Amino acid sequence: MNNDELEIIGDIHQNLGTGDNASSPRAYVSPAVIKRLPRYFRYLRELIRNGKMRISSGELSKIMNVTASQIRQDLNCFGGFGQQGYGYNVKYLYAKISEILGVNCNFRAIIVGAGNLGRALVRNPMFTKRGVSTVAMFDIDENLIGGTVAGVTVHSMDELENFCKENSIDIAVLTLPKECAQDTTEKLVRAGVCGIWNFTGKELEMNREDIKVVNVHLGDSLMTLCYELNLRREKKEDN
Amino acid sequence: MNNDELEIIGDIHQNLGTGDNASSPRAYVSPAVIKRLPRYFRYLRELIRNGKMRISSGELSKIMNVTASQIRQDLNCFGGFGQQGYGYNVKYLYAKISEILGVNCNFRAIIVGAGNLGRALVRNPMFTKRGVSTVAMFDIDENLIGGTVAGVTVHSMDELENFCKENSIDIAVLTLPKECAQDTTEKLVRAGVCGIWNFTGKELEMNREDIKVVNVHLGDSLMTLCYELNLRREKKEDN
Repeated sequence: MNNDELEIIGDIHQNLGTGDNASSPRAYVSPAVIKRLPRYFRYLRELIRNGKMRISSGELSKIMNVTASQIRQDLNCFGGFGQQGYGYNVKYLYAKISEILGVNCNFRAIIVGAGNLGRALVRNPMFTKRGVSTVAMFDIDENLIGGTVAGVTVHSMDELENFCKENSIDIAVLTLPKECAQDTTEKLVRAGVCGIWNFTGKELEMNREDIKVVNVHLGDSLMTLCYELNLRREKKEDN
Repeated sequence: MNNDELEIIGDIHQNLGTGDNASSPRAYVSPAVIKRLPRYFRYLRELIRNGKMRISSGELSKIMNVTASQIRQDLNCFGGFGQQGYGYNVKYLYAKISEILGVNCNFRAIIVGAGNLGRALVRNPMFTKRGVSTVAMFDIDENLIGGTVAGVTVHSMDELENFCKENSIDIAVLTLPKECAQDTTEKLVRAGVCGIWNFTGKELEMNREDIKVVNVHLGDSLMTLCYELNLRREKKEDN
């Protein structure tokens, strides 16, 4: 975590600690709004970095490429922090959205699979930026076990279950071969892990409401790009 | 590409070649439907693998966890291939969706940045599964240049523009540091690349309608997981 991050996350606590709404109960937020929250989080962070302390919904709308009315509706879910003629307090909004997104929860994550993808992820600053600590990696490769990647130790898969139990792991990032994904998930759930971030492409069977699986299908994103290129190609041919 | 892939993609061409709709003009498809298409693509592929030749909207609905009515509406965009009492012809539907998603376009891609993420992506079968060839990688690291990853040669960044021009590259996958993303994109666009698959987290400035940028923000996906875990934690505390 660099100084910027520290400063910004430090500010969150400060803001929430002194804010009136700090301990107010959570209002219902629709899934569509929830999906947009991480975007607000990114844009507001960027604004803070650039020293912008307040912003109108019109300005935010331009930056984020959504309508100002959409922004007002979204932010009303959190009590509507805007004031006529003033706009939004960027730091407070960022703090509130961070709180809802669990940035202050200090979630602890492990990465299961220390191949290229696992190694790319552990080096990615997104975890610390979102308040998630990556505390260990796991692999079956004897050449990797005992080594470190970005300061994180690679453990043997044999230690997986015990490690998770003993270290109160919240999130497991699955970057292992898809054939092992289901078995590994069952072990993780037994060990108290409640969030699975699944990069394996395997649809995990999960019948527990208290466990959340988020699947990342990179191929789906590639296909939306291919769809657009195909469309442009067809249009060109038609002209 | 393994035999399975070859067989399935072979079938697409066969189906479309003999189908009545092979050269019919493209109907309008809404963005919401387009977003779901890659999911249909994945599920239908899986059904074909398992030897399932036809399926009802009810069955498909259960597998995909959307309503049967939604599925019927979606597939009606492509002419509604279902028949009362028969269901959908899985191979034909897969072929049609593949066609719309550009799987038969033989798009050519390069990966710019041969770090862990670039190396993880080039090894991922998603490209060949979607008909995209990864023909080269690029990096500035002298230790990597001239080497290969999964059979793909790593070239010097100095060759980037010429290589793209000479090899008719359609798609550039950006896995380089975000500081270099904008400059590199401008070079790529000059060299005729029309699709940018952007993993850098940098918001690219792009004022050309004929260039499509798809951004991958893995952190957003992580945050939706954290949001859910936070919600479960709060509920637990309330009880």
